[in-house]
Amino acid sequence: MKTSVDLMIENVERLFPGHKEVCKGASVAVDGGRIQAIGPAQKIAGLFDGTRTLDGRGKLLTAGFVDSHTHLVFGGERSGEFVLRCAGGDYEQIASEGGGIRASVRMTRAATLQQLVDSARPRLQRMMAAGSTTIEIKSGYGLDLESELKMLRAIRQLSEEFPIEIVSTFMGAHEIPDEWRHDRAEYVRIICEQMIPQVAREGLAEFCDVFCERGVFDSQESIQILQAGQEHGLKPKVHADELAASGGSQVAAQVGAVSADHLMEVTAEGIEALKGAGVVPTLLPGTTFYLRKSGYAPARSLIDAGLEIAIATDRNPGSCTIESMLFIAGLSVMHLGLTPSEAIVAATRGGARALGREAQCGTIEEGKRADLILWDVPDEDVLIHEFANQVPHVVCAAGRIVFDSHTAITDRSDLTSDQGV
Amino acid sequence: MKTSVDLMIENVERLFPGHKEVCKGASVAVDGGRIQAIGPAQKIAGLFDGTRTLDGRGKLLTAGFVDSHTHLVFGGERSGEFVLRCAGGDYEQIASEGGGIRASVRMTRAATLQQLVDSARPRLQRMMAAGSTTIEIKSGYGLDLESELKMLRAIRQLSEEFPIEIVSTFMGAHEIPDEWRHDRAEYVRIICEQMIPQVAREGLAEFCDVFCERGVFDSQESIQILQAGQEHGLKPKVHADELAASGGSQVAAQVGAVSADHLMEVTAEGIEALKGAGVVPTLLPGTTFYLRKSGYAPARSLIDAGLEIAIATDRNPGSCTIESMLFIAGLSVMHLGLTPSEAIVAATRGGARALGREAQCGTIEEGKRADLILWDVPDEDVLIHEFANQVPHVVCAAGRIVFDSHTAITDRSDLTSDQGV
Repeated sequence: MKTSVDLMIENVERLFPGHKEVCKGASVAVDGGRIQAIGPAQKIAGLFDGTRTLDGRGKLLTAGFVDSHTHLVFGGERSGEFVLRCAGGDYEQIASEGGGIRASVRMTRAATLQQLVDSARPRLQRMMAAGSTTIEIKSGYGLDLESELKMLRAIRQLSEEFPIEIVSTFMGAHEIPDEWRHDRAEYVRIICEQMIPQVAREGLAEFCDVFCERGVFDSQESIQILQAGQEHGLKPKVHADELAASGGSQVAAQVGAVSADHLMEVTAEGIEALKGAGVVPTLLPGTTFYLRKSGYAPARSLIDAGLEIAIATDRNPGSCTIESMLFIAGLSVMHLGLTPSEAIVAATRGGARALGREAQCGTIEEGKRADLILWDVPDEDVLIHEFANQVPHVVCAAGRIVFDSHTAITDRSDLTSDQGV
Repeated sequence: MKTSVDLMIENVERLFPGHKEVCKGASVAVDGGRIQAIGPAQKIAGLFDGTRTLDGRGKLLTAGFVDSHTHLVFGGERSGEFVLRCAGGDYEQIASEGGGIRASVRMTRAATLQQLVDSARPRLQRMMAAGSTTIEIKSGYGLDLESELKMLRAIRQLSEEFPIEIVSTFMGAHEIPDEWRHDRAEYVRIICEQMIPQVAREGLAEFCDVFCERGVFDSQESIQILQAGQEHGLKPKVHADELAASGGSQVAAQVGAVSADHLMEVTAEGIEALKGAGVVPTLLPGTTFYLRKSGYAPARSLIDAGLEIAIATDRNPGSCTIESMLFIAGLSVMHLGLTPSEAIVAATRGGARALGREAQCGTIEEGKRADLILWDVPDEDVLIHEFANQVPHVVCAAGRIVFDSHTAITDRSDLTSDQGV
């Protein structure tokens, strides 16, 4: 008598990443949103009966992507800035004229909660369609109590709407708002004494993040904010060493942050600090690409030091609009020196670790959430070689099929009927 | 009494590129595969009744992309080479060890006609889904009579299967095959006296292309081959000035080529020659990006000289796998210095001119083929700012809807019902 399960993914060419080595021709049984069993196709077929089945022949099955760093909720959009910058405009000048983060702050403050949700929805839909099944979203374009709460409530509403997992981070310390430039200490006090307690009281965030950088928040301010967060149960994350070696990695180590992100300018001492404290280095090569810079983060130095890195999109309105984790994985192979396997691991297990979720997702293992992507390629080398082209064949979030590329070709009259996209 | 038409696209936010300036809120009536009428929404609604209608509110309508330069039919794949190269491997060394074009020649010769068609089909499906409604494909991985004919017959079969227009180019002069390295003149003779006459007899190609480059075909050989093509009715195209200023632009001008492609190393004299002869400069920035080079083609010098450029993917198994013309347009803004409008024009009208098809496609005009892309963005600035994310809302080829992204999100139970992707 076979056990009935919700979904069977049968006979996949390769399954990655998982702790077990599973030979070619494995099947995965999914039930109740979790991976029930993984094993040789014949064995699994003898034990389980799927209400629905997917044919995995010739296909790669990966864990769903975990995008551990995004700013995808914001008001307005900044394409004009991008066009100016590509035509040779200077970013610092654009920022000093009211562009950059400050422009998004103005537009986010002016938006209603519902406008924030409505404009973020298609972004999340595309990201889900591109295989991201766990996505972190930060506040940080409000920079006053009400606007930060509005952003976090928008994130909560999206989390309730979408069938994927959304993780919320409070980032009131994204920038000093114009109204407090004359009194930075007062803004830090507002974050610590007003924003953090209220965010915690409403259960609106799991993490607290700080932009620790020259001209934004210095090491001492960053520690003050992150510790205030910890006192209210918010786990620390740090934007560290992005534009200069500003001590962000050391701050992350000192407070025991879950992750330190960006790290383009991390020093050898910073790397040692991260390692000693078990902080997950999170690299965001899309931002370097999008800003047309050449100084990518020293990924190999981090790996050689024994650290397991994460990669993420940094999706935001200005410095990186890329939403696809596969695109980020491709850039990581092209410009960070990762192998295709390392890039896929960094985009799945690495991201899960950067969100403290390695027990729930990030690999294909029995008992974990059934967050899975079936790709029309045999292995990760081919996937990365075609990172600009491949879209998932099927995306499965907690056992539910949330995207199926096959259905999008509407006029198939001239096409052989058994050929997928 | 209204005229009944196949399709109405109503109330679009912006329509681009077309010769007429049409205000916000235009509608397009499509019938018999052609654009019947364009005008203010109210006027068009008063004249025509659509069997099917698309709501264009808030959306950008562009002409379908014309990808005038691809090598998308080939045997095997070369992801291993890409991985080696990203890890620091030297391209010249990879080529000398049997990689590069020569690897694709071996795998293409070993493939059957049907294998070539089957492996190219998903590429073409993705390209169509990304908005390319006219696509040129070259032979050139056969390099012997039978293998070149096999490639061209595969292209013909794909052309019959797909609802978009496929344009065929004979490129026996893509490389000197190993067996004729000791006697180049003999291979040139085979191209001119055996391949070209047979290709022409079977009507398998419209264009003849040559890789005019140091170490491949020199100027004299290139002219000999292109003129032999012209004698048999094949219009000339040239791979020119890609790795060095090797006189390719002058060759293109001398034979009156329709286009000169690559041009990373084109000189001021080369630009003058192209201009004088009315050759369309075709730039392929995806290849520069994909090979991680920094020397992009001098697009602004070409434009400033009064030339109208085309951009294309160069989709091939080794030096560029990018299939999306929007991605290429994005790279053109980031690295060629084009404005978003210039990039979209180069990807549509420019491509049409590079294939001698400016009377049929490349702009939204009455009488032209109804090759159209409806985008979920209001204008081309936003489209280019999100070039890594946006997929068409709907792609229409000769009036038929061949792609509709809305249908691919399969689990919409938690999503507001009126929200598209």
